[in-house]
Amino acid sequence: MIEAIQNHRSVRKFKPDAVTDDLLNEILFAGSRASTTGNMQVYSIIVTQNEELKKKLWEIHFKQNMVLEAPVILTFNADFNRFSIWCNLRKAQPGYDNFLSFITACTDALLASQNIALEAENSGLGICYLGTTTYNADKIIDVLHLPKGVVPVTTMVIGYPAEIPELTDRLPMDAIIHRELYQDYTSVNIDKIYAEREDSEMTRQLLKINNKESLAQIFTDNRYTKKDNVFFSKKYLEVIEKQGFMNNK
Amino acid sequence: MIEAIQNHRSVRKFKPDAVTDDLLNEILFAGSRASTTGNMQVYSIIVTQNEELKKKLWEIHFKQNMVLEAPVILTFNADFNRFSIWCNLRKAQPGYDNFLSFITACTDALLASQNIALEAENSGLGICYLGTTTYNADKIIDVLHLPKGVVPVTTMVIGYPAEIPELTDRLPMDAIIHRELYQDYTSVNIDKIYAEREDSEMTRQLLKINNKESLAQIFTDNRYTKKDNVFFSKKYLEVIEKQGFMNNK
Repeated sequence: MIEAIQNHRSVRKFKPDAVTDDLLNEILFAGSRASTTGNMQVYSIIVTQNEELKKKLWEIHFKQNMVLEAPVILTFNADFNRFSIWCNLRKAQPGYDNFLSFITACTDALLASQNIALEAENSGLGICYLGTTTYNADKIIDVLHLPKGVVPVTTMVIGYPAEIPELTDRLPMDAIIHRELYQDYTSVNIDKIYAEREDSEMTRQLLKINNKESLAQIFTDNRYTKKDNVFFSKKYLEVIEKQGFMNNK
Repeated sequence: MIEAIQNHRSVRKFKPDAVTDDLLNEILFAGSRASTTGNMQVYSIIVTQNEELKKKLWEIHFKQNMVLEAPVILTFNADFNRFSIWCNLRKAQPGYDNFLSFITACTDALLASQNIALEAENSGLGICYLGTTTYNADKIIDVLHLPKGVVPVTTMVIGYPAEIPELTDRLPMDAIIHRELYQDYTSVNIDKIYAEREDSEMTRQLLKINNKESLAQIFTDNRYTKKDNVFFSKKYLEVIEKQGFMNNK
């Protein structure tokens, strides 16, 4: 197996060592080799190394320390701006201000990001994705001056790891794989799939600290609450509309 | 650079040779090692090898021959179904029937898909992503029996390549990379970025065959038209709603 795939862990503590321009360029180039819809490359990547901008991004990303510590922050955007400008300059009428085009551009951005994650790890760097990108996309747009046609989808911090965490456990493969047809889950399946994780020492500690009955409650009540999800859903849909991806008529 | 990244090309012609179960399982396992939001693994992968189901998918994917030729078809879904069933069985109230959760689940699915693409290529297989997945997601849901909480995001055909196409050209890196702040494009930038592609023999031939003035027109008028994009935007949004990801209040 590709070593970088096998050894991936999210790194959240970084050494202050800089990433050289040559190395960064090679990693970014690896991103550009990912599959992209119709070879349109409808994504963009903002490289943040400036301390002031990093501080602003740190605030946006819920003040997670790794955003300040990591020498490089990459913001991945769904981007039909460049492509549409090109069309307009070539007597072609771009029709990419709609939801399907947004999803197409998200796909491009995310495939490129995973190539970059793996190539960074292959070069001895550590990475962590920031899910907070979709929460505060409006603020990222302001700080990074993203024009219409551009929406942030994910962010990655990159740097030399100051920690090597344990590999994270994953559910057994039959939690995610279905052969031929989707097999819906019975309570027996679910018990089996989650048994090892629910029985673990880490879960026992989490339940104690959080004073919860089940690991699932820590997700629904603390980590990913309905209230937050609904709030950020509305906000992200507004961003998508404001950036011009909701003209579906 | 990781070899599979460097050598990636989309393969659209396949030998009839089967992919062994062991190899397929290893490739799928590589997918499970990708980053996933909060370690929730909110995606699923349907493995299609059955000839009848392949034929149905082939029709859905605009009868592209590679869907019949390739021995394995993988459909990647945004999937909060399993996670929500788990929550319900553990006295936890899932709040994942909203748009943010859909985007979170899309992200999980797409990062896993790219690990799988690279690991497949690392094992001597060829792959091609099918963008038609978002066009006809409703039909895929029917054929593969996807329940509420599950939406197809992308599809990949996998098999032993019967062709090794040239590497696809990409735009110069400054077409996609912005340092610190987004630099919007002037017509001078655009001319420079697209110069090599627009000057190529392949473009000259395409313009002739399609009787068009510019390469951009081939995209806007033939390949990705506004009419299609609008039609499929509405349809995909309906699918997202029907599968239960639009309860944003």
